[in-house]
Amino acid sequence: ARPRVGYFYTGKTGSELLTDKIKKLSVRDYHSIPVVVNDQANAYDAITTMFLEDVGTLFVVDHHGMLVGVLSRKDLLRTSIGQQDLTEVPVHIIMTRLPKIKVCQKDDLLIDAGIKLIENQIDALPVVQEKGKGLEVIGRLTKTNITKAFVELVKNEDV
Amino acid sequence: ARPRVGYFYTGKTGSELLTDKIKKLSVRDYHSIPVVVNDQANAYDAITTMFLEDVGTLFVVDHHGMLVGVLSRKDLLRTSIGQQDLTEVPVHIIMTRLPKIKVCQKDDLLIDAGIKLIENQIDALPVVQEKGKGLEVIGRLTKTNITKAFVELVKNEDV
Repeated sequence: ARPRVGYFYTGKTGSELLTDKIKKLSVRDYHSIPVVVNDQANAYDAITTMFLEDVGTLFVVDHHGMLVGVLSRKDLLRTSIGQQDLTEVPVHIIMTRLPKIKVCQKDDLLIDAGIKLIENQIDALPVVQEKGKGLEVIGRLTKTNITKAFVELVKNEDV
Repeated sequence: ARPRVGYFYTGKTGSELLTDKIKKLSVRDYHSIPVVVNDQANAYDAITTMFLEDVGTLFVVDHHGMLVGVLSRKDLLRTSIGQQDLTEVPVHIIMTRLPKIKVCQKDDLLIDAGIKLIENQIDALPVVQEKGKGLEVIGRLTKTNITKAFVELVKNEDV
């Protein structure tokens, strides 16, 4: 379609158009694949998984596959400098656990997920959906996803 | 000033207004304070500094205070699982060093810094200025800064 240039009616200021555009972006279009470890895994397993999958945050699940905790690179670095044998440290004693974990859902606005990341000073949110009494992890929403969205806002206009 | 609502002439589409607004954001208005360690420091010192200052990236400087390297939480986690005594590992053997480091300057556009972070898959850029033959570190630009800028784009409109 030809761009509309010149006089046009929107009923809105330019600034409002910006907000409208950002408020259309949802978590479902920007999240990454989640990487999980079992709550019976040890810290050494978790660090290995983190490097193999090249992620900064792991989600910890129980034997039903339901979310129970979150492990950051910071949690694992703290553990690794204090311990002789990381294979003897179970992840469930070093993770942040429910209900302290912040989560988001795939229909949430990307901007609301961004606000949660900033206000709670965390790097990633699990994208979850309710399943029975638990939360199934279906995605991972990070500051990298938000940074990509920010870059695309401009790149898409330059085409 | 009263918002202009209704018919107005801009010569631009709403989308272009979005791009214009983002292209006014510069690194100088969003970067954080840099945290540096000396290149003679050891990995244990670096990890301690990272926790004390609560940052994910340290910049390594020489005895003139000039940038020589970058240390990420990932670099330090990798080192900490492989070593018995972290006080015997000098940071200059585990850091990413110039000229492989990506940098930005305070007058750069925030969007260009965001593109560098994404394309190079890194968490932070040192904000530098030339001083003699070296680069002085005057700031730290991270995905957190970009996420904050993204959130503020909408928050400022809601006032």
